[in-house]
Amino acid sequence: MAEKKFRVHFAPHDLETYAAGGTNLLEAARAAGVPIHASCGGVGVCGTCKVRIEKGQVESSRTRVLSEAEYDQGVRQACQTQILSDVDVFVPIESRLEQAVLAREKKQAAGIAPIGWRFKPPVSKLYLELPAPTIDDNTSDLSRLLREIRSSSTHGNLQVDFAVIRKLPEACRRDNWKVTVTLLTLSKDFNPGSGAEARIVDVEPGDTRAVNYALAIDVGTTTVCAQLLDLNRGEIAADNIVFNKQISYGADVISRIAYSQKPGGLLKLQREAVASINEVLAKLLDQSQIGRKDIALATLAGNTTMTQLLLGVNPKYVRLAPYTPALNFVPLLQASSLGIQVPESVYLVTFPAVSSYVGGDIVSGVIPAGFYQRNKLTFYMDIGTNGEIVIGNCDWMVTASCSAGPAFEGGGIKFGMVAVNGAIQDFEIDQLTLEPIIDTIGGEKPKGICGSGLINAIAGLLETGVIGQNGKFEAGLATDRVRRGEDGYEYVIAWAADTQIGKDIVLTEVDIDNLIRAKAAMYAGCHTLARSVGVQCRDFDHIILAGNFGNSVDIEKAITIGLLPDVPREKFIFIGNGSLSGARLAAFSSDLLEDALKVGRMMTNIELSDNLDFNHNYVAALFLPHTETEAFPSVKEKMDRLALSRRKGGT
Amino acid sequence: MAEKKFRVHFAPHDLETYAAGGTNLLEAARAAGVPIHASCGGVGVCGTCKVRIEKGQVESSRTRVLSEAEYDQGVRQACQTQILSDVDVFVPIESRLEQAVLAREKKQAAGIAPIGWRFKPPVSKLYLELPAPTIDDNTSDLSRLLREIRSSSTHGNLQVDFAVIRKLPEACRRDNWKVTVTLLTLSKDFNPGSGAEARIVDVEPGDTRAVNYALAIDVGTTTVCAQLLDLNRGEIAADNIVFNKQISYGADVISRIAYSQKPGGLLKLQREAVASINEVLAKLLDQSQIGRKDIALATLAGNTTMTQLLLGVNPKYVRLAPYTPALNFVPLLQASSLGIQVPESVYLVTFPAVSSYVGGDIVSGVIPAGFYQRNKLTFYMDIGTNGEIVIGNCDWMVTASCSAGPAFEGGGIKFGMVAVNGAIQDFEIDQLTLEPIIDTIGGEKPKGICGSGLINAIAGLLETGVIGQNGKFEAGLATDRVRRGEDGYEYVIAWAADTQIGKDIVLTEVDIDNLIRAKAAMYAGCHTLARSVGVQCRDFDHIILAGNFGNSVDIEKAITIGLLPDVPREKFIFIGNGSLSGARLAAFSSDLLEDALKVGRMMTNIELSDNLDFNHNYVAALFLPHTETEAFPSVKEKMDRLALSRRKGGT
Repeated sequence: MAEKKFRVHFAPHDLETYAAGGTNLLEAARAAGVPIHASCGGVGVCGTCKVRIEKGQVESSRTRVLSEAEYDQGVRQACQTQILSDVDVFVPIESRLEQAVLAREKKQAAGIAPIGWRFKPPVSKLYLELPAPTIDDNTSDLSRLLREIRSSSTHGNLQVDFAVIRKLPEACRRDNWKVTVTLLTLSKDFNPGSGAEARIVDVEPGDTRAVNYALAIDVGTTTVCAQLLDLNRGEIAADNIVFNKQISYGADVISRIAYSQKPGGLLKLQREAVASINEVLAKLLDQSQIGRKDIALATLAGNTTMTQLLLGVNPKYVRLAPYTPALNFVPLLQASSLGIQVPESVYLVTFPAVSSYVGGDIVSGVIPAGFYQRNKLTFYMDIGTNGEIVIGNCDWMVTASCSAGPAFEGGGIKFGMVAVNGAIQDFEIDQLTLEPIIDTIGGEKPKGICGSGLINAIAGLLETGVIGQNGKFEAGLATDRVRRGEDGYEYVIAWAADTQIGKDIVLTEVDIDNLIRAKAAMYAGCHTLARSVGVQCRDFDHIILAGNFGNSVDIEKAITIGLLPDVPREKFIFIGNGSLSGARLAAFSSDLLEDALKVGRMMTNIELSDNLDFNHNYVAALFLPHTETEAFPSVKEKMDRLALSRRKGGT
Repeated sequence: MAEKKFRVHFAPHDLETYAAGGTNLLEAARAAGVPIHASCGGVGVCGTCKVRIEKGQVESSRTRVLSEAEYDQGVRQACQTQILSDVDVFVPIESRLEQAVLAREKKQAAGIAPIGWRFKPPVSKLYLELPAPTIDDNTSDLSRLLREIRSSSTHGNLQVDFAVIRKLPEACRRDNWKVTVTLLTLSKDFNPGSGAEARIVDVEPGDTRAVNYALAIDVGTTTVCAQLLDLNRGEIAADNIVFNKQISYGADVISRIAYSQKPGGLLKLQREAVASINEVLAKLLDQSQIGRKDIALATLAGNTTMTQLLLGVNPKYVRLAPYTPALNFVPLLQASSLGIQVPESVYLVTFPAVSSYVGGDIVSGVIPAGFYQRNKLTFYMDIGTNGEIVIGNCDWMVTASCSAGPAFEGGGIKFGMVAVNGAIQDFEIDQLTLEPIIDTIGGEKPKGICGSGLINAIAGLLETGVIGQNGKFEAGLATDRVRRGEDGYEYVIAWAADTQIGKDIVLTEVDIDNLIRAKAAMYAGCHTLARSVGVQCRDFDHIILAGNFGNSVDIEKAITIGLLPDVPREKFIFIGNGSLSGARLAAFSSDLLEDALKVGRMMTNIELSDNLDFNHNYVAALFLPHTETEAFPSVKEKMDRLALSRRKGGT
């Protein structure tokens, strides 16, 4: 006779499962597909898996995380409850946290989010009520703490930081042996050489579980972006961006490496990177009114050179053949040891790099892009100072890097700026009057122009015949917007009176040339890498665009100038700053941090720097959109049409 | 039919064994009781187990650690050699290193040395020739290093220090990819939470295996003793001692703890401890002409308060009931992080403590005393500022502490000094003239008097009737040596003209009183602890005396004053500074470091501070030798005899 199964129904999800008598309710919830938050792993100590039994019989004793009132209302810990009959269960909002976080992140990643991960931050807080010492039990404070952690959690093997030991005697006694410990739990894979299940990184008197924040950082060559994350709510508490202060020592990684070889240069660049992080952190704290001391973790993604410079590891050999980084995997270290202004208890988890020119930022970006879990052939493109490309799916990945220069982030452009308030992000041009219509971030008067604005401006100038396919201004146009300036011919995007800076904002031929070279490098890289694995641009199921300027770029205009391939527009997906999103996801879930390690190991690096095919493709792409116009059929068609209409208009 | 066994003979040991064909020669050596050094654990990479095959057939390929010339001479790696016939093997001196170290340490410990340990320092050096990177193999420097270590040693799981990564790019390239890495290998037990087999703590260009030193430190309340150890030869390269600079903040642990509670007090005491270590280290380096950069490890033993002060961990609760230390087990930390002037690569291995008043120095001292491995009932006594006592054998151990004060180390004594050159270490007194005959360390003119000199002086003064059993000077003696000084009555041990200090060196009644109180605390502690486990002093098989002054103390005289029990003299064994010896042995052998952990866990602590029996015993012992003279039969007999002879002489 088959064993009797009981029906277990979960509200408000309206999901159900059938389970044998005695089945654990948390397991039944998992079987029904109801994600319940259980941060202690289901051993009954954290109280995060509380549910309310609406109908039916269960066996569940009252544990110390349940108040009497809760117990009387039918609230139980799912992990401590056995099913004895058909049961109706209501899952309250707190216990649905994980689901909420997952949903939010999926939404942010526009349908390509990673799957199968749990909301399980690498740092967690554990509240303990220690027995006070007596003459018969006068073991050391540390032994007392470890004993309690072992008995009230699943953690057996624990490492302890020295700073914790120094705080311990007073922390224990300040609130009568009630303490909260902060545990950093990383898999053995991410913390090689350590078999520890967890590291005790902090101890505080009383119950401080209500505050637990992480700092996610993306250190780019041009900008440093960061988010402050609320690990109790799975939310972004603040988000900000600053220029990387290293910019004054060179615009790209090569010039930074060159500077780092001067006496004191490495230390100076290290300090500038740290100062940039501290600057963005100060903004985040100010914005969110969160206390610096409540930060418990930092995650960081950056390209190989930025990472080595930040860590004070000489990147000299990154730029010398055969291009060897000093390290791919970065061991855990205390963020404060680098000068980052966070408590000593904050560890820095750094994304692994693949090679000298494909760094942790790309590994990080692949996480929110999620294609490492899917079988669709995907093209991932991070458009920054260095352009990095990944082609692959869940079975294989190849990657390459091409030096685009800082133009896409506003660097090397006369009035270039990052995409913050006051930056011209969109540009249209009247075909007849050649007058511009601009749109700035925040709707303010313009201060300068950011990457997306640049692309749109150049596309507009090209379409209206103000510039030719070689990027040079046409002669004899009936507009005072085009004039000869101090850097040669230029187009006035905004007259001084209409700006915040009191100067004409112009786009020069030099600017246009810089952008053409940047887009040529990106396009040539994509083309070369695709050919190296025998695929063509039309074979891609998805083209994922990452990078700071990604979200606001106009696909049509980017194709017009030849930055992106001319393929059906629905294949393009924006994920914005993928590197930062990956850093955020890693702070939300150790699962995704482990995925990052796998991704790093999966990627095969292809060197483009000495590649003849790349050089050929680069030269061919130094044209708007390209010297081979047949590669851009829709652009050719549009350009021909516009040229015709101009001729008609002119007659 | 029984398998044929071959006879394997080892010279110069003249030991042999019988082994089946194909038996590994290193295993055969072990079976024969021939200790061969094999630092890589027998996997063929270290070359330390080289032997010469004098006769017979073996199978052994030429590995890269054997030169062609060696191979032609019959030199083979024992661990890579299989026996094919009867064989005569010669073991060269290098491969007998372990035996030499063991023999030396056994000799030092006077027949009670620990047994069954290998010469296996926790730090070792591994020389590697890395393949240079190419465009097809341009993995990171760190991956290249780890790959080579994994393939050429038994180390799989490796932790890497950040400082190593920072040095790595240049270290690899300075000597054409030849590097020496320093590995710190500690058992999981000693490094809880870490499953690492080894931690890479340093990397140097070229082959630096020839230099490898450790610093062993004993931080006492009054003195800091240290040794510089040659880990290639298993020898003490230098040995020195300084006062603990904390002395100016209080003579004993209680007053130090009191001082540490003042604003800035803890930091000040921490710095003084570090400064003392740096002072003794400077002496050691000067003495040995060893380079500071060649130190690869530090081991440290100290009492609980000294250890916490050194680590900057508040010892406040050590002196408050119920006397809880902040920590018993001290996690590994970088010695330089405390301010100790050694390279960043030097880790500090600290002996675990048992309780607030039985610290790592006692756990350490039990190691060279070896009784934790034997079934003889042993009494271990460390006579220092705090007197600690251990009673037990291989099955159980109880321990207690009694505050003796600094008198035995020369503290609180008007002309007291530590046992260094110029200290009066022995004292005889002419029974008729009452003139002293003194002996100083180094044979110099006296500067002061150390612990052993004090005991001998007081015993001599007692035996000649210069002082009474209450420690007071007798009136009307026919000598100008006894006089009234600024601190009351005193005995002139040396006239100013005969000293190095140009002052009369005297022993005052206050000094004598201090010593009586110190010896009373020691004796009462011994008596109380013995009674608490139901044994008496006569039950002990061994009485082991440790402490700085141990080696030079005169047993007979120590019994005369009632410091030591009046039992057969052959039971007494001196081990000198056991704590320092333990720290040395730990640097020579990870086995003994693990033993220390076991010893720490074996010990049961008995609190004497609130013990009525102890207080009673203490008061009873404030007499020379004791108020209960029947407990000191041989002393009573001698005193009676001497008094009689004085009376006869006087008539």
